[in-house]
Amino acid sequence: MSVETTITEIARSARTASRDMAKCPTAKKDEVLLKVADEIINQTKHIKKENKKDLSHAKKAGLSSAFIDRLAISDSTIKSMSDGLKEVAALEDPVGSVSRTLMRPNGLQVSRMRIPLGVIGIIYESRPNVTVDAAGLCLKAGNAVILRGGSESFCSNQALAGIIKKALKESGLPEEAVQTVPVRERIAVNALLSQEEYIDLIIPRGGEGLIRFVVENSKIPVLKHYKGVCHVYVDDGADLGMAGKICFNAKVQRPGVCNAMETMLVHRGVAKAFLPGIAKEFARAGVEIRGCPKTCRILPMANKATEEDWPAEFLDLVVAVRVVDDMDQAIGHIEKYGSNHTESIVTSDYSRARRFLREIGSSVVLVNASTRFNDGGQLGLGAEIGISTSKLHAFGPMGLEELTTTKFIVFGDGQVRE
Amino acid sequence: MSVETTITEIARSARTASRDMAKCPTAKKDEVLLKVADEIINQTKHIKKENKKDLSHAKKAGLSSAFIDRLAISDSTIKSMSDGLKEVAALEDPVGSVSRTLMRPNGLQVSRMRIPLGVIGIIYESRPNVTVDAAGLCLKAGNAVILRGGSESFCSNQALAGIIKKALKESGLPEEAVQTVPVRERIAVNALLSQEEYIDLIIPRGGEGLIRFVVENSKIPVLKHYKGVCHVYVDDGADLGMAGKICFNAKVQRPGVCNAMETMLVHRGVAKAFLPGIAKEFARAGVEIRGCPKTCRILPMANKATEEDWPAEFLDLVVAVRVVDDMDQAIGHIEKYGSNHTESIVTSDYSRARRFLREIGSSVVLVNASTRFNDGGQLGLGAEIGISTSKLHAFGPMGLEELTTTKFIVFGDGQVRE
Repeated sequence: MSVETTITEIARSARTASRDMAKCPTAKKDEVLLKVADEIINQTKHIKKENKKDLSHAKKAGLSSAFIDRLAISDSTIKSMSDGLKEVAALEDPVGSVSRTLMRPNGLQVSRMRIPLGVIGIIYESRPNVTVDAAGLCLKAGNAVILRGGSESFCSNQALAGIIKKALKESGLPEEAVQTVPVRERIAVNALLSQEEYIDLIIPRGGEGLIRFVVENSKIPVLKHYKGVCHVYVDDGADLGMAGKICFNAKVQRPGVCNAMETMLVHRGVAKAFLPGIAKEFARAGVEIRGCPKTCRILPMANKATEEDWPAEFLDLVVAVRVVDDMDQAIGHIEKYGSNHTESIVTSDYSRARRFLREIGSSVVLVNASTRFNDGGQLGLGAEIGISTSKLHAFGPMGLEELTTTKFIVFGDGQVRE
Repeated sequence: MSVETTITEIARSARTASRDMAKCPTAKKDEVLLKVADEIINQTKHIKKENKKDLSHAKKAGLSSAFIDRLAISDSTIKSMSDGLKEVAALEDPVGSVSRTLMRPNGLQVSRMRIPLGVIGIIYESRPNVTVDAAGLCLKAGNAVILRGGSESFCSNQALAGIIKKALKESGLPEEAVQTVPVRERIAVNALLSQEEYIDLIIPRGGEGLIRFVVENSKIPVLKHYKGVCHVYVDDGADLGMAGKICFNAKVQRPGVCNAMETMLVHRGVAKAFLPGIAKEFARAGVEIRGCPKTCRILPMANKATEEDWPAEFLDLVVAVRVVDDMDQAIGHIEKYGSNHTESIVTSDYSRARRFLREIGSSVVLVNASTRFNDGGQLGLGAEIGISTSKLHAFGPMGLEELTTTKFIVFGDGQVRE
């Protein structure tokens, strides 16, 4: 069979399975999730054996140690996958909920009913835990899912997906509701991205290169973010103790993630009072500062920022710092260099707080809080499948609800159109 | 300037204008809409003069009389464009509304704020009224809009857009918030569909050919429906008087639109009692029946349906009729041949009504009402910009709210991530 035929068959059978999943009661979906949560623990030995095959391949191929780190499945990876599934099982099922009911003058009762999207394709890189995390969320929301992990994690993903398929079957659900792509070559990704007849949504997870490839080649809607160039703006008259704590947390607590601060904008009225203190703390944490000329005058030890530093996602212990004349300049900077991901203002001024919230067009805008809160769990959505900086369908962290849509349901008594 | 450069310049300036539109207070947006509503009436002579140029072109080119009908602007077209704008001005502004506020255990207050999408591209065929209707809705929702009408309506569209731009300018808003594409060649559409950096959404309006062309070539998200193959299922034990009225209305009241019934499914238990009566009414209205073998046994005058008739969007006084064994077969038929647009059940049975609503995956599912109600105005959304059968972002009729999205806004008091 050609790759195209194989992938079309997978997508077609996923579509069929999605019809059963859409009808599946919550209790049965939760039963499957909890069964998988247990079975992942029971099958630790098998999972690790398959993972070892991937690891030895990767080592032979000379892949970096950071890469191999992400690929490795430890006991704690297994426990966290299992716990994650239990959390998802405990979340409220969005499917079937009815909202926004209104009565029309002719007596028609119009509502919206939440329904699954159908078939979701997940395209990701080397972390095998995505296989379990993403499948759990998609299933709970009543969807079928096609998983395409990095070819380097092929054996690990097959082992994990096998456990999920077995649990589906044992609960009388179609095992085609969770499928992996049994082709290592990248051409399989192109084939997957052409199945617009059977797949409703593609979610790519990984580096900017992977995501751009998916967006360029997909005929199916894609939810994604390319990068997170997140800003904190320290306003004139801000509580500088609070500003220091927020900026330090936003940069240092976990620098390698998309909601970490990359650029700090400081009002010139507080620059001299604020910068030396935070610079000392950054220095202790090993953070390199790349400053604008005004910043460098206040902090002579700082490196000079270049034009490339402003739109950069460092994902590292590096921060760009710019002193701005006022909030207009801060907003202008964010509009020019930002990525619509997450921005925060630290301020004590009521009307500037309101204006920042209104005018910044990012998916999450905060007042007096760390950018690190852009996360489904932290914002109260439960587990998340990713963060969208596309405005269509979902903007910000995506939880179970974002894996569904609504249809209109209408109750009549024989009404016809005049 | 090359076509690409021209279009990029239009898209870039639309993006800039969209920032001002996003901040624009409701009263100012309504002022512009009402000014345009008046000015369209005042400029009737000018609009008709420009329209005449398009009409004489179209006649010379030998275009069909149906085509010329759609292209022509009469006094009543002008009145209805003007009235439409007044209606949109009277609708509630979705922008800025805050919803779904929740308090996190750490004291963060998390809400969603409704914001405009940004820049919307509308690609349509020959009806010049779309220029005014679509621009009005996009502006009210705080967006900038780029209009690409059919090249046959070039002069009409320029005249109408000119009136809108003048009103924007007079109200101190950027006239780049409404732009037409000053290039007649189709290559301009391809250039438009590549501006993913500046345009957030494309809405194509027209025949299936245009829509497929847009979907195939767009790098920007597209909201669309290809066609409406809408079904009415007359259940066993249905009130046959009601069923007759609903089926007649769904087929005959306006057969050329996407929410008209194309196929009638009748339970075998009521087929003999129901079909002869409705067939008589259909015959009086000039409706051709194409029936399955069972239908043709009951209605000897009916034509035989072929396999091509089941997925067909007739848009005409033609109806396909099939007798089914039970509701399962009706649902299976709709899943196989339907277009996810609109389906209705006529029934007196509580649990079958519930099941039909739950299991049919179309954008609007009705019980005991005509399919003709799939319309933004009829369902209480106000004016609509189209109907989406894509599940992402909007599914069903799209009103002002569907031309917006939400961002998360977070109020903190210095919270950092643990």
